[in-house]
Amino acid sequence: MTQLHPLDQLRAEEILQARAVILQVWPGALLRFRSIFLEEPTKSSLIPFLNAEHTGILSSDTPRPPRLARVQYDVVDANKIHGYTESVVDVGLKKEVNREAFDPSCQPYLTMEEMKHFFDLCLPSPLFKEAVSKFTLPEGYEVEVEPWPYGYSNPGETPPRYIQGLCFAKDKRNGNLDSNHYSHPIPIIAVLDVYKQEIIKIEKLATGGIADGLAYDTHQANVVDHCCPGEYVPELADVEYRTDIKPLNIIQPEGPSFKVSNQSLVEWQKWRFRVGFNPREGVTLHDIYYDGRSVFYRLGLSEMTVPYGDPRPPFHRKQAFDFGDGGAGRSANNLSLGCDCLGAIKYLDTFNVDFSGEPIPAPNVVCIHEQDNGIGWKHTNFRTDRPVVTRYRELIVQEIITLANYEYVFAYKFDQAGAISLEVRPTGVISVVNIDPGKTSPWGNVVSPGVLGQNHQHIFCLRVDPAVDGYNNTIFREESLPMPLEPTTNPYGNAYKVITEPIETSSGFNASPFTNLVVKMSNTNTRNPISGKPVSYKFIPPPSQLLLADPESIMARRAKFARHHVWVTSYKDGELYAAGNFTNQSHEERGGLSDAVARNDNTVDSDVVLWSVFGFTHNPRVEDWPVMPVEKIELQFRPADFFNRNPALDVPAVKNTASVLVDSEVCCLSNGRS
Amino acid sequence: MTQLHPLDQLRAEEILQARAVILQVWPGALLRFRSIFLEEPTKSSLIPFLNAEHTGILSSDTPRPPRLARVQYDVVDANKIHGYTESVVDVGLKKEVNREAFDPSCQPYLTMEEMKHFFDLCLPSPLFKEAVSKFTLPEGYEVEVEPWPYGYSNPGETPPRYIQGLCFAKDKRNGNLDSNHYSHPIPIIAVLDVYKQEIIKIEKLATGGIADGLAYDTHQANVVDHCCPGEYVPELADVEYRTDIKPLNIIQPEGPSFKVSNQSLVEWQKWRFRVGFNPREGVTLHDIYYDGRSVFYRLGLSEMTVPYGDPRPPFHRKQAFDFGDGGAGRSANNLSLGCDCLGAIKYLDTFNVDFSGEPIPAPNVVCIHEQDNGIGWKHTNFRTDRPVVTRYRELIVQEIITLANYEYVFAYKFDQAGAISLEVRPTGVISVVNIDPGKTSPWGNVVSPGVLGQNHQHIFCLRVDPAVDGYNNTIFREESLPMPLEPTTNPYGNAYKVITEPIETSSGFNASPFTNLVVKMSNTNTRNPISGKPVSYKFIPPPSQLLLADPESIMARRAKFARHHVWVTSYKDGELYAAGNFTNQSHEERGGLSDAVARNDNTVDSDVVLWSVFGFTHNPRVEDWPVMPVEKIELQFRPADFFNRNPALDVPAVKNTASVLVDSEVCCLSNGRS
Repeated sequence: MTQLHPLDQLRAEEILQARAVILQVWPGALLRFRSIFLEEPTKSSLIPFLNAEHTGILSSDTPRPPRLARVQYDVVDANKIHGYTESVVDVGLKKEVNREAFDPSCQPYLTMEEMKHFFDLCLPSPLFKEAVSKFTLPEGYEVEVEPWPYGYSNPGETPPRYIQGLCFAKDKRNGNLDSNHYSHPIPIIAVLDVYKQEIIKIEKLATGGIADGLAYDTHQANVVDHCCPGEYVPELADVEYRTDIKPLNIIQPEGPSFKVSNQSLVEWQKWRFRVGFNPREGVTLHDIYYDGRSVFYRLGLSEMTVPYGDPRPPFHRKQAFDFGDGGAGRSANNLSLGCDCLGAIKYLDTFNVDFSGEPIPAPNVVCIHEQDNGIGWKHTNFRTDRPVVTRYRELIVQEIITLANYEYVFAYKFDQAGAISLEVRPTGVISVVNIDPGKTSPWGNVVSPGVLGQNHQHIFCLRVDPAVDGYNNTIFREESLPMPLEPTTNPYGNAYKVITEPIETSSGFNASPFTNLVVKMSNTNTRNPISGKPVSYKFIPPPSQLLLADPESIMARRAKFARHHVWVTSYKDGELYAAGNFTNQSHEERGGLSDAVARNDNTVDSDVVLWSVFGFTHNPRVEDWPVMPVEKIELQFRPADFFNRNPALDVPAVKNTASVLVDSEVCCLSNGRS
Repeated sequence: MTQLHPLDQLRAEEILQARAVILQVWPGALLRFRSIFLEEPTKSSLIPFLNAEHTGILSSDTPRPPRLARVQYDVVDANKIHGYTESVVDVGLKKEVNREAFDPSCQPYLTMEEMKHFFDLCLPSPLFKEAVSKFTLPEGYEVEVEPWPYGYSNPGETPPRYIQGLCFAKDKRNGNLDSNHYSHPIPIIAVLDVYKQEIIKIEKLATGGIADGLAYDTHQANVVDHCCPGEYVPELADVEYRTDIKPLNIIQPEGPSFKVSNQSLVEWQKWRFRVGFNPREGVTLHDIYYDGRSVFYRLGLSEMTVPYGDPRPPFHRKQAFDFGDGGAGRSANNLSLGCDCLGAIKYLDTFNVDFSGEPIPAPNVVCIHEQDNGIGWKHTNFRTDRPVVTRYRELIVQEIITLANYEYVFAYKFDQAGAISLEVRPTGVISVVNIDPGKTSPWGNVVSPGVLGQNHQHIFCLRVDPAVDGYNNTIFREESLPMPLEPTTNPYGNAYKVITEPIETSSGFNASPFTNLVVKMSNTNTRNPISGKPVSYKFIPPPSQLLLADPESIMARRAKFARHHVWVTSYKDGELYAAGNFTNQSHEERGGLSDAVARNDNTVDSDVVLWSVFGFTHNPRVEDWPVMPVEKIELQFRPADFFNRNPALDVPAVKNTASVLVDSEVCCLSNGRS
C-alpha cells in the first residue's frame, strides 16, 4: 500500500484489517457490524505532520499519526439484546486500542439492515395485519411502510430499541416499485421492538381537520379512497413533459482547473485542502489553505434536526436527527454524470460495510467540479467608458443525501476571492399524513387530496474549526449601532458606530441582522499591515427561525443546540456532534453543545470551535408536492482584513470566446433548431 | 413604423417627434434636454388592451393607449437659471398633452452633460486652483475630480443647484486615463453653483484618526505622499495574473430556449413578459404571465440610497440616491459578449438623448440568457435506489450600472418552478477619503495606505405591482409562532401555530425572520382547489439592517422609505419612486412612500402595490480594495398554492451528455492540457 495521508479515508484493506482485529477480540460472539471508518488523528498528533507537510520538510521519516479505524458494532446476546459497542483499532499495529460499550440509554443510529429487518417483521406481524385489515385499500394497492427513528422518550424512561413505521398504500397494479406511495397515507404507525423482533403496537393517527380535537380519529375503512396519485417517475407521472428546453452544456475544452490527488487532496486556484468522508457527517473538509496560509482546520456538517409541529399524538414523535439517527455518509447518493452536476466532474468514493463487516464500495458519493457564477468584480471608468470585468469561478464539492422522503444537497463552494460558502438545498418529498375529505388543518397544508403536508422545521448545524493563520483564534461579534444626533459627536445625525467584542468563554448567542451582526474568526497575533486589524475570516449568521417547540418539551431538550445560532467552544478531540453522539431515542441532549459550553472554557486566543445553526421553517405549499423544488440557504465565510487587497485582483479579465449572440427574433419555441 | 406594443420603448423616430413638439411649443427658448422616454400608459388604459392580447382577441381595431413620451428638460433663462420642466407629448397626435414646471426646491438628477460641465468649470476655477496649490502632488500626478450630488440641505432652505466634487490625484505619468485615482484622495471638496457656473466654495476634509476630533485637519502639503497605487487595469496593475484558470464555456448547440420579439416580449418556459427600460429605473418588467396566468403587472427597482456614516462635516453630505440623483438607465453599462455573461446572449438596446434632444443609441444595456443553477428537484426511492433528478434552468434578465465609483449588477431570474428572483451584486470601487499616516478611524477601515474606506449602507427598494390571477390582490403577513406546552392543546410541546393577517390599509412593516415572517400576495377571490387557500405568491423580506442615521437627521428624513422593509400602498399611476420624484438636494422625502401610506387607503382585495426595502451595511474590508469582489443579496417570489402541484414536475429528467469524467489524478495546474 502506498503511504496514505493521515486524513485519507480507510482503504478496503484497512477496513478488512480492522474487522479482523475485532473478530479476533470477540471470539465466538455474534457481531453485527454497523460502520468502520477512519478515526481521525488527534489534533496534537496531526498538527506536527501538517506543519512538516506545509513547510516542505515532510519525508518518510516524519512521524505519522497511527492509522486508526473506528469500528461500530452490536454484540448480540442470547436474549437478542444488541449491545452497541465502539472500538478503535490501530490498523498498522493490528490491535484494538480502545473500546467502549454502551447501555440501552445510548441508542445508535438506524442502519439500512435494520430498515430491511423492519420490512421483514412488520408485514407478517399479526398485530399489523389486523390493523391493516380495518382498511379497504383500492384494488391493486398494497401497504408500504417507511421506517423512522422512534423519536421521543419520556425523561427517566429507558425504552428498548424501537423503530416506528409510517404506513402508506402503494399502487402495485403495474408492478412499478417506484410508484409514489406517499400520496396515499394510511393513518397508523407500527412500532417495532428491535430486541424482541416484534411489532409491539399499532398507533392510530388523527385524520381530522381544523374543527376536530387532537384525539379525533374517524378511521373509515376507505381512508385512502379520496387520495389521488402523485407520481413523479416519468413512466408513471400524469405529466406532459416540456419539449422546449434546449441543451445547455458546460464545456471545459482544456479540462478542469483543479487537481485531485489520492482521492483526498484538492488543489484549485490557490486553495489546497483535503476531503474526508465518514458515515455520520458525510463530506468533511480539512486543513484548508489559501496561497500557503491556513484558514480552517476542519469543516463538517454536525447535525440536523427536523421536528414536526403537529400536536396530535403520536406525531410528537416525528423528530428526526438526520445525522445522528441516520447519517449523511450512510445515506449519500451515488451520483451520476450529467444528472447531478454538469461539466467536467471528478467523483470521490467511499466504503460502507455490511453487517459482517465487509467493505461495500459506495462510488461517486462526492462530486467536485467548477462552475461559473456570474461576475466576480467589475469597474467601469465612466470618463473613458473602459470596463474591467472578471468572472466568478467556483469550485464545488457536493454531496446529496436521501433520508427516507427528503433529499438534501450540500455543496461547499470555494471562490477566487478567498471565500468559502456552504449551500444547502432541501428537496425530495415532504412528510405527509392522511386528512379527511374536505378538511383543512392548522398543522399543515393539504397538498393533494387526503394528504396533509405537516408543518415542520429543518435546523442544521455546521461545525467550523477555524485556523486563521494558525490554530489559536478568537471569535468576535461585530455590530453596527445607531448613534443619536448630538452636537459634538454626531452633529448631523448620520454617524453610526461599529462595536467589536470578543467571546471570552464558551457560550452561545443569536443572529442579529438588524444590528448587522458579523462574526469574525480572528488571529489577534497577526495584524493586517494595511488596516492594523487582526487577520480574520467573517460570516453573517443566517437569521433563521430557531426551534419553535416549547423549551420544556422533550423535542427542545433533545436539540438544545437549536437554541442559538452561534456557539463557541474550546476544541476537544472527537467533540463533533451538536446534539451529542446518541440522538436516537434520546430524551435530552447529552455531550452536545449545551454540555460543551457548560465547561465555561476560555475561548480567547486559543483553539476554538465555532458552530453555526441555521435552518428553515417549512409550512408546505401545494407546489411542494409531489417532489418539492429546491429551497436554498447559504452561509459564506469571507476574508476580512486577511489579505492585503482583493485576492481576486489577479483573476485576468479574459473574454470568453465561446459565447454567441442570439439573433434578433430567434425562435426556439418550436422543436426546430434556431 | 410597425405597430408597437404600448409597453415598447420609444423608437428613435418617436423621440425625434417628441423633441420636435417641444421645440415647437417653446419657440426661441434655450432648452437643454435631459431625457425623453416612454410615458407608460395608465393602468386603466392598458388593462383592456392586455386583456384583449391575452384572450387572443387583439386586432388592429382594438383600442390602443396613445403612445406618449415624457420629455424632461431645462428651460434656461437670461440669468442662466435652469427651469426644470417635464412635458408629456402624444407622439401620434404630435401634441404636448401635459406640462409641469418645477421651482428650484425640486432639483432634478445630474446628467452626464452636467458632470462634464463640472470638469470644465472646476479645474480652471481660481478658488479651486488656490486650494490645490496648497498640496504638493507627486511628480506626474494631476488633480482628478469626481462630481457627486450635493446631498444634504437644511430644512426650509432652498439652495441653488449645487454639485460637489470629491478630489483625487491621478498618476498621469504614462498617460493612461484609467489609472485609479481613488488611491490618492485629496482632502478637499469643491462645490459648484450650476446657475452661476462657478465654483463657490472649497471645503476642507478631516484626515484624522480615532484620537482626533471631528474638526481635526492637518492638511500637510504632502497629503498623498503616503498613498500607494491601487491599479486594477491589467496594463498598470502590479499583479501576477493567474494562468491556471481553464476556459469554461456555456454552449447551447441548439440555441437558447427563449424567444425575444420586437425588443420587448420575452417567452421562456411558460413565462411571458415584456421588458421595459427607462432612464431612471433601468430595466422594468411588465405583464408577467406564467402558463397563461397573470402574476405581476410590473416589477422595477425604485430607489437606492447610499448614506455614509462618517460624522465629520461635510461627509454628512455623502448620501447618494442613485436612482433619483443619477438614474439606473442613464448609467447602464453597454455590455460585452463573453465578458458580462456567458453562453447564448440576447442584448436589448435603448436610447439616451443629448442636450439637444437627439437620440443617442445605447446598445446592449440589458442582456438575456439562460443559465444552469444546479439541481431543480430530486428524489431517490431508497428501496430501489432509483433517482429522478432535474436541472434548475433559469432565464436571466440583467443590467449593470456604474454610479461614479460603484457598480451594481441587477439580475431578474425566472425559474421553471414559477419563481422570480432579484439578485443584486454591488461591486466597483468603494468611496474613500484621505487619512493621515499610521492612523485608524472609527468611521471606516484603512484599505490602502492613506485611504480610508468609509462605513456606509446601501438600501434598495424594489417596487412590486402584483397581479396574482388578476389585478385585485390582498397582502398577508404570515408568521410561525410558538405555543406553550399545555395538556389539552399542546400536550408534548412540539406544536407551533401559523397566523395569517391581511394588511388592511396602506402601511409599512418590518422583516421578522425569528417569527418566520412570510409576505403573501394573494387573490382571495380564487382558491387553490387542493388546499382551499387563496392563490398566492410569497416572499421572505430580507432581514437587512435599516437606515442607521438618527430618525431626526436630514439623511433619514430624505429616505423615509428606508424605515421599513415592506410597504403596502394602493396603486396610483406614476407613483414609482420610493423617496419621491426629486431626491437631489431634498431635505425631506416628498411624494415617496411615507406620503403614499399616509393616504390610509384600503388595501384589501384591491389594486395594491408592495415595496421591498433591503440592503447592506458595508463596513469595508481591505479585500474590498481596489475593486471589491461582488457581494450578493437575493429576494425571491415563489408561488404559494398558486399551482396545483410542483410546476416544475414537467421538467424532464434528461441526462446531459456533454458532461465528462475527470480522470483520477488529472493535473491541470501546469500549463499543459489535461
